[in-house]
Amino acid sequence: MSISLTILGCHSATPRINAFPTSQYLEINNSHFLIDCGEGTQRQMRKYKVGFSKINHIFISHLHGDHFYGLVGLLSTYGILNREKELHIYGPVGIKEVTLLQLKISQSHAKYKMIFHELSSKKSELIFEDNKVSVRTIPLTHRVYTNGYLFTEKEKPRKLNMLNISGYPEIDRADYLNIKAGRDVVLASGEIISNSELTLDPPKPLSFAFCSDTSYKPDIVPIIKEASLLYHEATFLADREDLAKKTKHSTSKQAAQIAKDANVKQLIVGHYSGRYKDISLFKKEAQEIFKNTNLAEPGKVFSI
Amino acid sequence: MSISLTILGCHSATPRINAFPTSQYLEINNSHFLIDCGEGTQRQMRKYKVGFSKINHIFISHLHGDHFYGLVGLLSTYGILNREKELHIYGPVGIKEVTLLQLKISQSHAKYKMIFHELSSKKSELIFEDNKVSVRTIPLTHRVYTNGYLFTEKEKPRKLNMLNISGYPEIDRADYLNIKAGRDVVLASGEIISNSELTLDPPKPLSFAFCSDTSYKPDIVPIIKEASLLYHEATFLADREDLAKKTKHSTSKQAAQIAKDANVKQLIVGHYSGRYKDISLFKKEAQEIFKNTNLAEPGKVFSI
Repeated sequence: MSISLTILGCHSATPRINAFPTSQYLEINNSHFLIDCGEGTQRQMRKYKVGFSKINHIFISHLHGDHFYGLVGLLSTYGILNREKELHIYGPVGIKEVTLLQLKISQSHAKYKMIFHELSSKKSELIFEDNKVSVRTIPLTHRVYTNGYLFTEKEKPRKLNMLNISGYPEIDRADYLNIKAGRDVVLASGEIISNSELTLDPPKPLSFAFCSDTSYKPDIVPIIKEASLLYHEATFLADREDLAKKTKHSTSKQAAQIAKDANVKQLIVGHYSGRYKDISLFKKEAQEIFKNTNLAEPGKVFSI
Repeated sequence: MSISLTILGCHSATPRINAFPTSQYLEINNSHFLIDCGEGTQRQMRKYKVGFSKINHIFISHLHGDHFYGLVGLLSTYGILNREKELHIYGPVGIKEVTLLQLKISQSHAKYKMIFHELSSKKSELIFEDNKVSVRTIPLTHRVYTNGYLFTEKEKPRKLNMLNISGYPEIDRADYLNIKAGRDVVLASGEIISNSELTLDPPKPLSFAFCSDTSYKPDIVPIIKEASLLYHEATFLADREDLAKKTKHSTSKQAAQIAKDANVKQLIVGHYSGRYKDISLFKKEAQEIFKNTNLAEPGKVFSI
C-alpha cells in the first residue's frame, strides 16, 4: 500500500520559464496514472524520469488549454516510441474528436489503440476499477465541465494472526486463503473459531483526491472524506476571493477549509496565479486552517 | 537592412530535456516573424526574451506535431494577454480547422482576429508583402505537404552620390526624391544628367531561406539562390542517407550541397535526429562541402 505523487506542473494559465501547467504522475498500489497534461508535460516527464511505458491510463480534468494542450504531443510521442499497449484516456466529451483530428492531420500513425472514455455525468461515478485501484470522478464547478478524480487502493485481504493461529495445531496452511478472505474455521470437534481471532485488520487503503480548477465546492467533502492525500487548486489568496469567485477558482483558504471538513491527512495546493511572486504565502494562508499543507512544485514528490 | 534569427528549437521528433522541436524567430528589416511552432515554443520565447506582441505573422511549414503542436497554446496565450492586433497564420490546408476546434473546445475566447492563410500550391508563390519584406513559399518534399519560406528585404531607394550632385549647383533638394527613385535630371539647358551619375547602388537586400523537413531537393536552388542565410534541415548524417531517403529528410551533406549550389552566404543546419549524441558531426560533415556552416542550437542568434 503506497502512494507516490510527482508534480510535473502546477501553475495556472500559460507556460513560463519556471511555470509549467498542470500535470501529475501518480503511482498508487503499483499502478501508474497520468493526471492532466498541459503543454510541455512530456518534457517534464523526461526531466523527472517518469517511465512513459508504465502509463496506461490518462485522466484529464477539463479541456482548458493548461490542462490538456500537451496531450496530443504525448500521444504522438507514444506512436514514435512504437508503443503497442492500449492506452485509456478519460476526459470530458469532446476530447476524442479534438485529439483524433490533431493526430489525423499530423498523420501520426500509432500502432497502439487509444480508448477514449468521455465523461458527461454531473454525479460522482466509478470510471475505472481493477484488482488494485478504483477511480471515481469528483464533479467540480468551473467555467467548463470539470471533474476531479479520486484514486483509492483496493482493500487487501485480512492479515493472518500467526500468534493466535499457532494455538490451533489443527489449522492447516491450506486454510489460510479462506481465513484471509474473512471466513471462520470449523474444527473437527465442531468448535467454530471466529475469523476475528485468527486475523488482523489489513492496512487501511490509501487514497488520493485530485481537485483541479473549481470554485469553492463544499459538496465534494463527502466524496473525498478521509483521503490520505488531497490536491486542491488554490489559484488565489484570500485577498482576491472576488476574483476566485468570478473565474470559478478557489483561494488557498478555501482549499484548506475543504481539507479540514473532509478530514484528509494531507493537503497539497497548487495552480498558482502568475500574479503571486511568492508562493509560500499559499502555504501560510492554508496552514491557518489546515496545518498539514504543502506546496505543489515541479519535480516535488509526495510519498506515503 | 538587417537579419537576426533566434533559434527557439531545432531538434526533430519529440521534445526532450534539452531538445526542443522546431521554432525560429526572425527579425528582418524591422519586421518580426515566427516560423514553426513545436510544443513548448511559447516557453522558449519567454526564455530567450522574444517579445510576444511584436509578432503579427506566423508561418508553419507543415502539420507534423514537432512543427505545430505549440501553436494553439501560443494563440490561447495571446488571448490571455488580451492581444487586440490581428494575427496572420500561414500554413497547409487544415491548419485552420484543427486550430479553431482546439480553441473552441477549450473555450479560449480571444479579442483579436486570427486570419488563416491556407496554402496548397505546389509552386513557389508570393504569400506576403509589405514595404519592408516579401515572403515566398519554397515547395519542399516531405511525407506531408510542406513549404519552406523565403523572406526577402524590399530594395531600398538608390543612395544619393552627394559628391557628384554638388557638381551641379542647379540640382535642388526638391529633386532628391526623384533622383533616389532612379530618375534622370534634366537641367534648364536641356542637358540630361543620368541617374547613374547622381546615385549609388542601395545596399543589396538581405534574405533568409527556411527549409524545414525535406528530402534532398535540388530544384529549390533557383528559389533560394544567393540567399544571405539558409536554414536547411539535416536530420541525419551521410551514413544514414538510406534512412533520410526513406523518411523524406536530408543529410547534412545534402544540406551543404544545396547551400553550395545556391551560392548562399551562410548555412545553418538543424532538426537533428535524437540518435546522434554529438551534433558537432553535422557541422563537420557539411563543412567538407560548404565552409560557412553553423549549427542551430536553442537560444543561438544569427545576425547579419
